[in-house]
Amino acid sequence: MRDQVPRRALQLRSLVTAAQTVQLSLEDVEVPVPERGQVVVRVEAAPINPSDLGLLFAGADMTQATAGGTAARPVVTAPLPPAAARSAATRVGQSLPVGNEGAGTVVAAGASGAGQALLGKVVAVAGGAMYSHYRCVDASACLELPDGARAADGAASFVNPLTALGMVETMRMEGHTALVHTAAASNLGQMLNRLCIEEQIPLVNIVRSPAHAQLLRAAGATWVCDSTSDTFSGDLTEALKATRATLVFDAIGGGPLASRILAAMEAAISVGGTFSRYGSSVHKQVYIYGGLDRGPTELTRSFGMAWGVGGWLVTPFLQKAGPQKVADMRRRVVAGLTTTFVSHYTDEVSLAGALQLDAIAVYGRQATGKKYLIKPADER
Amino acid sequence: MRDQVPRRALQLRSLVTAAQTVQLSLEDVEVPVPERGQVVVRVEAAPINPSDLGLLFAGADMTQATAGGTAARPVVTAPLPPAAARSAATRVGQSLPVGNEGAGTVVAAGASGAGQALLGKVVAVAGGAMYSHYRCVDASACLELPDGARAADGAASFVNPLTALGMVETMRMEGHTALVHTAAASNLGQMLNRLCIEEQIPLVNIVRSPAHAQLLRAAGATWVCDSTSDTFSGDLTEALKATRATLVFDAIGGGPLASRILAAMEAAISVGGTFSRYGSSVHKQVYIYGGLDRGPTELTRSFGMAWGVGGWLVTPFLQKAGPQKVADMRRRVVAGLTTTFVSHYTDEVSLAGALQLDAIAVYGRQATGKKYLIKPADER
Repeated sequence: MRDQVPRRALQLRSLVTAAQTVQLSLEDVEVPVPERGQVVVRVEAAPINPSDLGLLFAGADMTQATAGGTAARPVVTAPLPPAAARSAATRVGQSLPVGNEGAGTVVAAGASGAGQALLGKVVAVAGGAMYSHYRCVDASACLELPDGARAADGAASFVNPLTALGMVETMRMEGHTALVHTAAASNLGQMLNRLCIEEQIPLVNIVRSPAHAQLLRAAGATWVCDSTSDTFSGDLTEALKATRATLVFDAIGGGPLASRILAAMEAAISVGGTFSRYGSSVHKQVYIYGGLDRGPTELTRSFGMAWGVGGWLVTPFLQKAGPQKVADMRRRVVAGLTTTFVSHYTDEVSLAGALQLDAIAVYGRQATGKKYLIKPADER
Repeated sequence: MRDQVPRRALQLRSLVTAAQTVQLSLEDVEVPVPERGQVVVRVEAAPINPSDLGLLFAGADMTQATAGGTAARPVVTAPLPPAAARSAATRVGQSLPVGNEGAGTVVAAGASGAGQALLGKVVAVAGGAMYSHYRCVDASACLELPDGARAADGAASFVNPLTALGMVETMRMEGHTALVHTAAASNLGQMLNRLCIEEQIPLVNIVRSPAHAQLLRAAGATWVCDSTSDTFSGDLTEALKATRATLVFDAIGGGPLASRILAAMEAAISVGGTFSRYGSSVHKQVYIYGGLDRGPTELTRSFGMAWGVGGWLVTPFLQKAGPQKVADMRRRVVAGLTTTFVSHYTDEVSLAGALQLDAIAVYGRQATGKKYLIKPADER
């Protein structure tokens, strides 16, 4: 198989410069010869997840981006606002590959049995640097897709599915019995909704438009609250009374929403209770896992003293959960690849296509229903 | 002894009315005859702690307070802003006693040996309703003071000492090795400073004036950062680099301070490290235990994803720590009553004196060095 693999191929790179810009380009890099336990995957599909955009754009103002380079090797340059430049100080001058996950065909393998067994198979990988024509990884990092599954089906096998499963598992580990999710109409949100329906976990979906509320209701969601509605506070409190949810996963981060949810939880908990000067003793937790609103989180602290707000990421969660639980989760994802854990894409692009300003203008907005799939193999 | 105890005596009360006011008064209440395991304490000293003011004032605007009643039975009335009225909705119409802790002489006891053994002793009690002439409590709730100790010495034996010890214990239980404390020149802050010096725990004291910085340095503090200084951010980062502190106890609550400390911690942790798109993996925690600034907490989230902010109260902490640890802590407090755990008061007032507008204007501000001690026994 090695003869099929070129010695060099393209890889998407993000470089923060000393001039406080980010520069996106396709670099010609060596394709490694796989060592004993390794395989080379021809990347055929890799999603652009919200969690890729931080590394990709480095917080740059992409509305100011300019295009350069050639059609086959485009270069996009955009300025970093001062706060982004400070955050990105430690990566100045480092040309970084991007792409948390993807899938493709194993086209070369080292001598190990595990590697050889994967030759010709379609696998999913969460190895980073997946916006590449070829990616050399440990065979053990590969999730073999079922017979007949396309790379596009398995491209998003890790980030969203393990995040959804991780939210449910965190709920159980920390003693909660129901969930609240914001930006709930996202690909991840729709997945969490299907998962919670399957597991009979009460889920309060918070969305930001009537259309998104409709989308989730059509998908079987019982509790959907539209934060743009005049009746939002009351709707939310009713949903919280009914579900007794005390755990929130929040993709928005900035603004008063986390605080409003905590206050509504406290109101739902306190119904019919007696006065306590420090509020209820029921712990209410918000985990912020995204930053659709980059502004400050504003907490009014009008919800007693038994509360917490913190950051949450799937990777540290998986480390805490341990290898056995993670293996269970991976099996479950493969079984539900085209059902519970399916992803939908607005558009498919090549690596060069991902560096077109009009594409960036769409997928960079992180808007619901605007998800891109990169298909690097299509352009070689 | 029972003959010495009147059948009725005065007790300070706080009442939220349906007209959205708080009304403070002295009510004539029955002094219970102690049951078998109970004692009656003649309250001789009770501090006005910041943690008493929430129940006392119910969030009212005390600058708008008006005085009524008589010299012996003053009545103070103040309006509740709308947010405070909402928070206090469940206590409308309930006349609530106030005063978390205090000390005095046991003047009557039930038949139990434990109660009888306390007759004539000076004890400290954290029973609530301590702004009273007499308070009937379980003998087991009494902390006997050492021979020769005055009630004033033991009046604040619980809230601040157990809070300071609880902060240190929380640090150990959650795997941190150093502390940051805001409003660090408070009575509690000075106590925590003495305790950390004794235990050789690195403590970063954050204060809000040069005078308070001086006060703490004079008390032996190594790390003092004045948030009103131009060099605050740099000073704080240096102190955090030196101490490796990753846990904050914050009495202020509102505004950007918690966020600034988290950002400085992340900067101190990340020195010399390589770029990580999600920041360091070191967990940084802020516990908000007070609300000197009632405005919203503003979190910029510029400190990676390994962080948490939450409420912290000493009572749930003690429940988590368990009776054995609490007994150890109480012994330790008694041993250090006039040294490590000493409190200082600006002024002493009677129950009626505590309801004078000029006194409220001073102790209601929660300013450092403006702490009042109520001495109910002085006015009978």
